[in-house]
Amino acid sequence: MIGRLHHVVIVGGGFGGLCACRSLKKAPVRITLIDRRNHHLFQPLLYQVATGGLSPANIAAPLRSLVGSQANTSVRLAEVVGFDLDAQRVFLRRGSPITYDTLIVASGSDQSYFGHSQWAEVAPGLKSIEDATRIRRRVLLAFEMAEQATDPQTIRRLTTFVVVGAGPTGVELAGALAEISRRTLAGQFHNIDPAKARVLLVEGSDRVLPTFTEPLTEKAQRSLERLGVEVLTGWMVRLLEPGRVEIVQQGDADEETRQVITAENIFWAAGVAASPLGGDLAKGSNCGIDRGGRVVVGPDCSLRGRPNVFAIGDLANWGHDLDRPLPGLAPVAMQQGRYVAKVIRRRFQGKSTPEFRYFDRGNMATIGRRMAVGELGRFRFWGFPAWLAWLFVHLMYLAEFENRVLVLVQWGWNYFTRNRSARLITAEPADYSTESEGPDWDALEAKWKR
Amino acid sequence: MIGRLHHVVIVGGGFGGLCACRSLKKAPVRITLIDRRNHHLFQPLLYQVATGGLSPANIAAPLRSLVGSQANTSVRLAEVVGFDLDAQRVFLRRGSPITYDTLIVASGSDQSYFGHSQWAEVAPGLKSIEDATRIRRRVLLAFEMAEQATDPQTIRRLTTFVVVGAGPTGVELAGALAEISRRTLAGQFHNIDPAKARVLLVEGSDRVLPTFTEPLTEKAQRSLERLGVEVLTGWMVRLLEPGRVEIVQQGDADEETRQVITAENIFWAAGVAASPLGGDLAKGSNCGIDRGGRVVVGPDCSLRGRPNVFAIGDLANWGHDLDRPLPGLAPVAMQQGRYVAKVIRRRFQGKSTPEFRYFDRGNMATIGRRMAVGELGRFRFWGFPAWLAWLFVHLMYLAEFENRVLVLVQWGWNYFTRNRSARLITAEPADYSTESEGPDWDALEAKWKR
Repeated sequence: MIGRLHHVVIVGGGFGGLCACRSLKKAPVRITLIDRRNHHLFQPLLYQVATGGLSPANIAAPLRSLVGSQANTSVRLAEVVGFDLDAQRVFLRRGSPITYDTLIVASGSDQSYFGHSQWAEVAPGLKSIEDATRIRRRVLLAFEMAEQATDPQTIRRLTTFVVVGAGPTGVELAGALAEISRRTLAGQFHNIDPAKARVLLVEGSDRVLPTFTEPLTEKAQRSLERLGVEVLTGWMVRLLEPGRVEIVQQGDADEETRQVITAENIFWAAGVAASPLGGDLAKGSNCGIDRGGRVVVGPDCSLRGRPNVFAIGDLANWGHDLDRPLPGLAPVAMQQGRYVAKVIRRRFQGKSTPEFRYFDRGNMATIGRRMAVGELGRFRFWGFPAWLAWLFVHLMYLAEFENRVLVLVQWGWNYFTRNRSARLITAEPADYSTESEGPDWDALEAKWKR
Repeated sequence: MIGRLHHVVIVGGGFGGLCACRSLKKAPVRITLIDRRNHHLFQPLLYQVATGGLSPANIAAPLRSLVGSQANTSVRLAEVVGFDLDAQRVFLRRGSPITYDTLIVASGSDQSYFGHSQWAEVAPGLKSIEDATRIRRRVLLAFEMAEQATDPQTIRRLTTFVVVGAGPTGVELAGALAEISRRTLAGQFHNIDPAKARVLLVEGSDRVLPTFTEPLTEKAQRSLERLGVEVLTGWMVRLLEPGRVEIVQQGDADEETRQVITAENIFWAAGVAASPLGGDLAKGSNCGIDRGGRVVVGPDCSLRGRPNVFAIGDLANWGHDLDRPLPGLAPVAMQQGRYVAKVIRRRFQGKSTPEFRYFDRGNMATIGRRMAVGELGRFRFWGFPAWLAWLFVHLMYLAEFENRVLVLVQWGWNYFTRNRSARLITAEPADYSTESEGPDWDALEAKWKR
C-alpha cells in the first residue's frame, strides 16, 4: 500500500528541507529526503568550528536521528544531479531515478567567487564541516610554523590573516581570529607573540555588515578594531594568489590605489550563489533565474506551471522585486519549508492556501566575546545584551536538545576561561606520509615555501 | 641566561612525555617537548570516537594549552627521525637538530600487522584521531550503502563487521559496533534492519581479554554474545583482502578448518609494536630491543651507559624478565614519566633515586552500556559497578577539566537516550569530487564494488 501513497521528494536536508519534512510528519504521504551528506549542519556556527571553539558534532546532527524514525520518511544519502519535470523524476549521481508526485528542492547555496573559480583553492570558504576543519588546521599550523621560523618576513606572512567579505560570516570569522591570536594563544608560544598577528577584513562596499543599518555597522566596526582587526572597507580584491592578495579602492579604474598584502592564509566570505540545481529547475520549466542563480518562484513557492514543484530557501527568489530577494537566512528557509508543507497538506483537504508571507525575525551578527549587533524592525541592540540574545537565539535553533546542552557547556567554559579546546590539527590524508605517521612536514613545508 | 640552563628534550606528548614534562615544571631546566601532532590524545577512549559516541575534541587537548604556558617549557610541532647519542642531538624531519643535556624518549607504539604491512590498508587500526574518524565514516557509510543496495549478498557483506584481536580495544570496538547496529540505528532505516548486522570478533588465543583472569574473560565473552557479537576464539587470521578474511583454527597446520568471512569492514586491534625510534636508540647505545621493538632500559629507565637518556612507556621494556614487559597501559607511562622527572630533579640536588617501581592500579575493559570487567590484584569486579568504576577512572584521567565535564554530559545523554550524536560522515578530501561538493559517490562506489 505504501507504494500508492503520494510521494513527496525533498532535495536537501538543510533548514528548509528539514522543516518541510518535519511539517509533513502526519500528512498522508510518503517522503524521501535526499541529501549528499548524512547530517544537517547548523551553518551559522560553522565559524566557531573553524576557530576551535566548537566540535563539528556540536553543530551537526545525523539526518537519520532527526527524521529517520519519522514513520512516513525515508532518508537517502545521494547526490541529485538533475530533474525531468515532465516525467516527474529526480536523477541521482548513482542509482535509478526517483519518481515523485510532489518535489521540494531546497539545495541551498555554494560559495561564489564571482567567476574566479581558481580563487577557491587560494582562499577557502566556509560552507561545510570539512571547510571548517581545513581553516582550523591552516590557522593553527600557521602559528606552529611561525614559532619555528627565523626569517621575520616569513613570520609576518604566516601570522597575517585576510578575510574577504564583511558580511556576518566574514565579521564573525575575523573577530574570532583576532580573539584566538590575542587571547587564546597568548603566552603559549616562546619565539613569537601571537598577539602581533594581523587580521585584515577586506570589504568592497563602504561599510561592514552592509545589510544592517548604519549606526550598527559603525558599532560593529569599532568593536572589530578594538579586537585588533584592521578593517578595509571600500576595497575590492583584484587578484588572489597563494600567499598574496591585491586590492584596489572601489571605483578606482586605473588601479592607482593598488595595495598588495602578503598573507599565508586568505579566507573567502564574500559571496554565495544558489546551487546549480536552480539552473536545472529553470531549464525544465518556464521560470527565470536571477543573477545569483536563484529560481524565481510564485507566491506559493511553486514553479510557474508546475504547482507540484517547489523551490525554497537560498535556492529560491520569492517575491515581486527580483533584485531584492529575501535574505539567505535560516528563518526564511525554515518558514518556506513549513509553508510548503502546509500547502501540500491542505491540497489533500481540497483547500487552497494564501500566499507565503515572510515574518521577519530580525538580523544578528556576533563580533567576539560579549559583543554582537542585532536589529528587529526599527529596534536595534548591541553589545553584551545583543550577544546574550544572539547566544539564546542560536541555542534555540540548534536542532537537537543534546547539542544545546553541550554547546552551552562548551561556550560557558570558553567564556570564562577564554579557552578554545577544539584546537586540533587533524591533517588531510594527502598531507600524510603514511596513514599512521602524522602530517607530512616536508609536503607542508613545500606549501609554506611557495 | 636561558641558553645556559640544562636542556631536557622530551620526545612525544603522550601520557609518559606529558607527565614527565609537568613533573619538571619547577625544575631548574628548560624543556623542549616535541610531538608530531599538536594534541595529546586520550587513546583509551578512541573507540568512542570511532563509533560516534564522542567528538575528537572530547578526548584530545592541544599540547600548548596543557603545557605551553609552563614557563620553562617550549612546545615544538615536529617529527623526530633519529638521534646521535654521542653528540647529544635529536634529528628532526625538517629543521636543524636539537641538542640536549637530558633526553626522554616517549614515542609510544604503532599498530603492528606482524609483518603483513599490506594488511594496514585492508584493516585499519585505531591509534589516531584520523583512524577513528575513518572507521566512523566506513561504518556509517556501510549502513547507508546497504540501505540503497538490492542484492542480499551485497547487503550482507556491507553489514558484516570483523574485528581482529580481542584485547581491550578489540572488545570495546566490537561491543560498540554491536550497540550501534542493535540500538542506536534501530528503526532509522527503511530497507534494511541494522540489528541484523553481524559483528565478529576474531582472537588467536583461546579466550577474549587474555590479560585478564579466566572468570572475568568468561563474563566478558557472555556479555559480548548477549550484545550480539559472534566471538571466535582460537582462530588465526591467515589472509586479509579487501572485503574478505580467511581464518584457520589455532594449531591447524593443514588449514583444514579454514573459514572465509566476507565483510566490507575489517578492523585491526591485534597488536602493537614500539615506535621505530626504539631501534634507533638501541643502535646508538649498548641496549637491546625486545621482540616488540621495545628498548630494554635499566632499573632507573635510562639506557645502559647513557644515564642522561631515558626511554619510557610503550617504547620501553623495563624489568628483569624480557619476555614479560610491563603492560602497554597509560598508568605505566605516567608513572615512569613522573619517576624520570624525579630522577632528574634529584640529580640537581646531588641525590640518587631508588629504582623505578610500578604501582599496579589494576586493569579494566568495558564491553558496552553498563558492562565492564576489572581486576586489581586479587580483587575482581564486573557488570554495572565495574562500568561505573571504569567511567570514573577514565573521567579522572582525562587531561583537562573541561573535557571531563563535556564527556560526562555526552555520556549521560548517550546513556539515557542510547543516542550517538557524533555520527557524522566527514569524507576524506580524496573522496571528494571538488572541495565543496561532498563525497564523490562514484569513487566510493568503486571501492564498494571491488
